[in-house]
Amino acid sequence: MNLLVVGTIALDTVETPFGSATEILGGSATYFSLAASLFSKVRLVGVVGTDFPARHLEVLKTRSIDLAGLQRANGRTFRWSGRYHEDMNTRDTLDTQLNVLSDFDPKLPEDYRPSRFVFLANDSPGRQMKTLQQLPDRQFTLLDTMNYWISSDRPALLEMLGQVDGLIVNDEEAKDLAGEKNLIAAGNKILRMGPKVLIVKKGEHGSFLFSSFVQYAIPAFPLEQVVDPTGAGDSYAGGFMGYLARAGRVTIPAIKKAMVFGTIAASFSVEKFGPERLVEIDRGALDDRYEQFVQFISL
Amino acid sequence: MNLLVVGTIALDTVETPFGSATEILGGSATYFSLAASLFSKVRLVGVVGTDFPARHLEVLKTRSIDLAGLQRANGRTFRWSGRYHEDMNTRDTLDTQLNVLSDFDPKLPEDYRPSRFVFLANDSPGRQMKTLQQLPDRQFTLLDTMNYWISSDRPALLEMLGQVDGLIVNDEEAKDLAGEKNLIAAGNKILRMGPKVLIVKKGEHGSFLFSSFVQYAIPAFPLEQVVDPTGAGDSYAGGFMGYLARAGRVTIPAIKKAMVFGTIAASFSVEKFGPERLVEIDRGALDDRYEQFVQFISL
Repeated sequence: MNLLVVGTIALDTVETPFGSATEILGGSATYFSLAASLFSKVRLVGVVGTDFPARHLEVLKTRSIDLAGLQRANGRTFRWSGRYHEDMNTRDTLDTQLNVLSDFDPKLPEDYRPSRFVFLANDSPGRQMKTLQQLPDRQFTLLDTMNYWISSDRPALLEMLGQVDGLIVNDEEAKDLAGEKNLIAAGNKILRMGPKVLIVKKGEHGSFLFSSFVQYAIPAFPLEQVVDPTGAGDSYAGGFMGYLARAGRVTIPAIKKAMVFGTIAASFSVEKFGPERLVEIDRGALDDRYEQFVQFISL
Repeated sequence: MNLLVVGTIALDTVETPFGSATEILGGSATYFSLAASLFSKVRLVGVVGTDFPARHLEVLKTRSIDLAGLQRANGRTFRWSGRYHEDMNTRDTLDTQLNVLSDFDPKLPEDYRPSRFVFLANDSPGRQMKTLQQLPDRQFTLLDTMNYWISSDRPALLEMLGQVDGLIVNDEEAKDLAGEKNLIAAGNKILRMGPKVLIVKKGEHGSFLFSSFVQYAIPAFPLEQVVDPTGAGDSYAGGFMGYLARAGRVTIPAIKKAMVFGTIAASFSVEKFGPERLVEIDRGALDDRYEQFVQFISL
């Protein structure tokens, strides 16, 4: 099945205890589509500026990611810069320059409209809604958001939650959205806001599925060394949606397996700076680690 | 198989966002033996003062916990008082009165010496060693410790680690002991210090097994409400060791199943103040929740 992502393409500058990297390829749509393209064709909608290096586009093209929806706007590309703390679980954002992202209008190419599987990466709920309205044939839409929208644009976000099939957020965001201290209570409350499926990402502690009938939890893939956590969540979403789009059906067993592939994609993503490791691997590497992981979680 | 625990019997005063309880039955040996006695006969070694209420002893006796090793010393019983924060993951210790615990000498009754399964609850490594030396026939010994001993009595603790089969600590303690920020790196390093098995408790995030050949991780049992986390770790150890003692063999499949029963015991323990919920349940309630949990973690 065809899979569409609307998200950011960025130039990231990252410092971690293992080193630093300047103006490397980043952004939610980048991590998502590199992970998802290991399973499925991916259509990418986003914007870059005139300064965006051609070599970064080549990376996406080697994975046959469809860039017909990638806009090139006058101005500079979106830039993000951050520094991770020693424990890798917290980070400071040092700088955010929206640049061409400020006026981004997610206008989909005509032939993207029949897309069935859709990932709306973190963005303003208003702009996410604009995308949704161009997708009459969507079968499964997964939404990402963040604390900023939860507090500053709550009504629009709640409207979005009534329109999508799934929500993917981290544990803090889930608790904020629900106004609950307990994650299980928060998850159950969010299901009553609309989405049939809620995936909560807990970083090194794994991920949690809430749905009407089934709860499911898995640990993270155990890594002795995390070099750069940037993009882990979007890589997870990419593995998750890529697997679902390939499967073509959204059943509970498929969702569980998709969570494992999300976990595996994220585990590769954090092993090197930027999306480098995601670019290196093939489907075989993913499947090998999938087998290891199944052993790791089997009673 | 016979199972021995050496630990504390306490009078706890606890405040949580759900209320408070004053001078209720507490202590590591209490939680451990109440959980373990759902699987196996338990021999308890500890000390109480002359002020210890008879009704608390009755609670232990209803589970046929062997109290021949319980000493009654002149003086007041060990008291602990703490307050949990809103998120239930952190707490402040308000008061600790060691009282009769200060001079506790873990002298085992003669007929306890052939004990095969042994849990050494958190205590000074010196006193833990004294116990160990009285147990020539031990088959599987699990050790608990805490940050205080890791920093203040490290050489003695390291000596203990060379003598026991398993260590059970929380994630912070594991990182402290190993001097590592990454839990996986920490766990692998601790295995090189002696124990064949390391169980890391991560509270609401579940638990992790490190051993030479196998790693295994499970989430916590999902609860919408945690009323009092006191004793959760010792209840986990009780479910774990109780199951192993009943199984009579320490294989990887048995250890994994023991972790699940530890998880289940802990999940009941936190549902009410003190060990009240552990006292209410029977083996059937544990088995029902075990089945639920297996569904919850099954791919």
